Amino acid sequence: MNILFIMYDQLRFDYLGCAGHPRLHTPNFDRVARMGVRFTNAYCQSPVCGASRMSFYTGRYPSSHGAQWNGFPLRVGEVTLGDHLRKLGMDCWLIGKTHMKADAEGMARLGLSPDSVIGARQAECGFDAWVRDDGLWGEGPDGFYDEKRSPYNEYLKSKGYDGTNPWADYANAGIEDGDIASGWMFRNADKPANIAEEDSETPWLTSETIRFMEEAKRPWCAHVSYIKPHWPYIVPAPYHDMFGANDVPQALRHPVEREDPHPVYGAYMENPIARAFQRDEVRQKVIPAYMGLIKQCDDQLGRLLDHLEATGELSDTMIVLTSDHGDYLGDHWLGEKDLFHEPSVKIPMIVFDPRPQAEATRGTTCDALVESIDLAATFVEAAGGEVPDHIIEGRSLMPFLHGREPEDWREVAISEYDYSVTGMCTNLGLSPRDARLFMVFDGRWKLIHAEGGFRPMLFDLDTDPEEFHDLGGDPDLANQIARLYDHLARWGRRMSQRVTRSDADIEAMRGRSLRRGILPFLYDGSEVDSELTQKYRGPARQNHVDGDG
Amino acid sequence: MNILFIMYDQLRFDYLGCAGHPRLHTPNFDRVARMGVRFTNAYCQSPVCGASRMSFYTGRYPSSHGAQWNGFPLRVGEVTLGDHLRKLGMDCWLIGKTHMKADAEGMARLGLSPDSVIGARQAECGFDAWVRDDGLWGEGPDGFYDEKRSPYNEYLKSKGYDGTNPWADYANAGIEDGDIASGWMFRNADKPANIAEEDSETPWLTSETIRFMEEAKRPWCAHVSYIKPHWPYIVPAPYHDMFGANDVPQALRHPVEREDPHPVYGAYMENPIARAFQRDEVRQKVIPAYMGLIKQCDDQLGRLLDHLEATGELSDTMIVLTSDHGDYLGDHWLGEKDLFHEPSVKIPMIVFDPRPQAEATRGTTCDALVESIDLAATFVEAAGGEVPDHIIEGRSLMPFLHGREPEDWREVAISEYDYSVTGMCTNLGLSPRDARLFMVFDGRWKLIHAEGGFRPMLFDLDTDPEEFHDLGGDPDLANQIARLYDHLARWGRRMSQRVTRSDADIEAMRGRSLRRGILPFLYDGSEVDSELTQKYRGPARQNHVDGDG
Repeated sequence: MNILFIMYDQLRFDYLGCAGHPRLHTPNFDRVARMGVRFTNAYCQSPVCGASRMSFYTGRYPSSHGAQWNGFPLRVGEVTLGDHLRKLGMDCWLIGKTHMKADAEGMARLGLSPDSVIGARQAECGFDAWVRDDGLWGEGPDGFYDEKRSPYNEYLKSKGYDGTNPWADYANAGIEDGDIASGWMFRNADKPANIAEEDSETPWLTSETIRFMEEAKRPWCAHVSYIKPHWPYIVPAPYHDMFGANDVPQALRHPVEREDPHPVYGAYMENPIARAFQRDEVRQKVIPAYMGLIKQCDDQLGRLLDHLEATGELSDTMIVLTSDHGDYLGDHWLGEKDLFHEPSVKIPMIVFDPRPQAEATRGTTCDALVESIDLAATFVEAAGGEVPDHIIEGRSLMPFLHGREPEDWREVAISEYDYSVTGMCTNLGLSPRDARLFMVFDGRWKLIHAEGGFRPMLFDLDTDPEEFHDLGGDPDLANQIARLYDHLARWGRRMSQRVTRSDADIEAMRGRSLRRGILPFLYDGSEVDSELTQKYRGPARQNHVDGDG
Repeated sequence: MNILFIMYDQLRFDYLGCAGHPRLHTPNFDRVARMGVRFTNAYCQSPVCGASRMSFYTGRYPSSHGAQWNGFPLRVGEVTLGDHLRKLGMDCWLIGKTHMKADAEGMARLGLSPDSVIGARQAECGFDAWVRDDGLWGEGPDGFYDEKRSPYNEYLKSKGYDGTNPWADYANAGIEDGDIASGWMFRNADKPANIAEEDSETPWLTSETIRFMEEAKRPWCAHVSYIKPHWPYIVPAPYHDMFGANDVPQALRHPVEREDPHPVYGAYMENPIARAFQRDEVRQKVIPAYMGLIKQCDDQLGRLLDHLEATGELSDTMIVLTSDHGDYLGDHWLGEKDLFHEPSVKIPMIVFDPRPQAEATRGTTCDALVESIDLAATFVEAAGGEVPDHIIEGRSLMPFLHGREPEDWREVAISEYDYSVTGMCTNLGLSPRDARLFMVFDGRWKLIHAEGGFRPMLFDLDTDPEEFHDLGGDPDLANQIARLYDHLARWGRRMSQRVTRSDADIEAMRGRSLRRGILPFLYDGSEVDSELTQKYRGPARQNHVDGDG
């Protein structure tokens, strides 16, 4: 069985037809949902690209793998999904974005060259790169945000798009009065991107994926990782005007959120992204483009499904559709992601298992508390392995896919956020190590702990599903808060770094030293079977005859 | 300046003259104490050799480095003291024991050969090995406990001691009726080891150290790591009868400790080591030998000090005397180490800084809460570096050595213990990951948390310095217990794995993406200086002229 692990960037859980979006129809996402299980309480481990992705790729929490924000290198030697799958005879390929930053210093310390196979995998968080393009070719006075080579820009140049950065000038820009109208500016979001639709990012990566599926050795795991519907919010015709102002939902926000907000939330509401998304004209320009980008993703997903069907491999390919985090789009007076309201931290997760054991669950939903790290465990099991739970902290979703109730399941989902690099850290006067947030969600109560001496935030999603009312200061809820803090404390003591010894290794070690002559409790030897002490009883001569034993 | 980092194995903090031992005179330890600072509240990070040592060698807590018990490999790539010091131009040598187990699987995954310089350092937890001998050549029906080559056994053979394991037959055995009388058996502890004193382990390693000091390139850090006074408890003449039954102190134990003990403590009191040390004849045989072994260590320390004085290097060498953990010797009805009573978890720590800045503190004691991980930080500072506090969790002791009060200092010392490999885990019916203990000590209150659903243990060292009365079940102390649990929870959330980004790196990253064209908040560009958006404003032509900027 192959694994087609598709990630969209910044795709909100509720911007899919199968998730109940009133205006956006996504027949291909819905088709996979009908073939498999849609997880309705799936959470990313950190609502920011880099940290979230490193958790998907290691099956470990951000504070376990340490790459807690964009551009924080994943430490050399950290065991990845690719390491686990290759051990099981399955290749693990990357097609698209990872946001991985190599631990160049660590690699140099260990003498690993990025040109070597081992070094390249270290540099690509365990994947073999079919094509890697992180899809953010932003450029400013200090140069490009991403200094790597862009295969997508090379493709555009090969198709005759001119300039040094056609990603910016064509794929992510419209035209106004014959000039480039950059997609970085929301006022241009309703313009058609100045590019042939088939040359835009999502179709290009889809074509790369089809080429991969035609050529790759079986079995494969392919991480197909689209940059869209991530900003810049602009999309080519015909998607640019499929949706309009009438399709833009009311912002999920309430004046009470701005009355004496938690300092960290308050700081985020003041940042330029939030201020932009607090303007109705921004939402009315951006959200139709965002919907168009998703519609394009859905059509391109259709191409992949049709290809798998045509080659007969649909029946032999596990398909996973998910996202690294959501997008506030103005909800809660915020833009982007970063915090823990549902539009940001909850992710779409649809899993199709083609095998007969999954018949009973096809087209169902599962509301268990699922974390993004569960996918790595699921893939290891799908590849025929046992989950190395001393390394992978997630749990296999296979029981849910096969209609079995797992004996026990997590009581809380945990998500983390390190904002030490952001202006909010500076504005709040925090040290880099205090700019950290932790979410503990039990399915009803969502506690957010902020380092740095702040009170917690607390939401009751039963009585306040929109998360408008922060109850973190309510003395009547001290017990709920203490209970969730206990969960966080238990999690903080978790066994996350004992990665060189499995429980089975440990059981095999028991009593071993006894049979190798470590006997620090003998008075005269009579305490144990003489076999254990024969090397230590006289006479000397006899000992020597025994040799090394 | 050189660093002579001497570790004794299983040396109790209070078995030194300078620490007030009534019968044991240790003029050479005392001499270093008069030259430097003796830390009277120093704690190991785990009362077991392997885990404790990996913390000394990484400056990180056991649950940060992951090598939580003997024989748990230190994960490949974990940054060590050697890595830090070599960066600063100081070699870092090993002479003696580390109890390091190489992460062979991780090294193979990264293609590191143990024969390469890099591979050898990975295999030796960052040291260059002048001589490595872990000093436990136990042998049983399944062979040797330690399958490596023993330089000490080779030495003994070269001196004409016969047999395959003269460590066992001579260095750690006496003679009775012409037969070997093994030092593994306590009944033989009062016999002289059947070896010339100068050939026994402590003088041998001392001679290796002097040879090192004669040959090594400056500046060096030398980790001189003696196996003694660790068991087998037997010592050659004249040390075997320097002390007798009259010198054996009363066991520090109380019947109340056996009334309804905490289940984990109860399980330890039942193990064969504890049962042996509950017998007075065992203490009367073992403790005089233990004292003799320490006396021999003191004499050999004198040889090292005299050598440094003769070569004039005493004034240019920082000297540290410490141990990886203590030894119950029957106190609290226990033998060996493992738990968190002072005789087990507190360690001797004496630091001599030859530099003038340390004049004011010579011969003083310091009662600050010190952890073994503080030494790695101290050594980095001694070598002229800045402590990389995103990797090293310990704190430099230099302020205390130089008579400066640090602005702030830790409020609690933390120690951990993983007993998953032991029979106590099985006897208590625990899963391997629940067989873990955490100590939180604030200088007065000592809380011990046990995973697995047990109540905590609690001792008040002000009113009960002998730690006889476990107050962990006292409802009147709920607030103290909660306060210490808060400390443990904060520690559990510590930033321990963000090892690829320092605070300085993070500060340098701030605002970087803005000047590299990542502007996800623009409505029309007027929000920012036009310099930041020049790449995105029309006309297209002009953009191209700009080139890559």
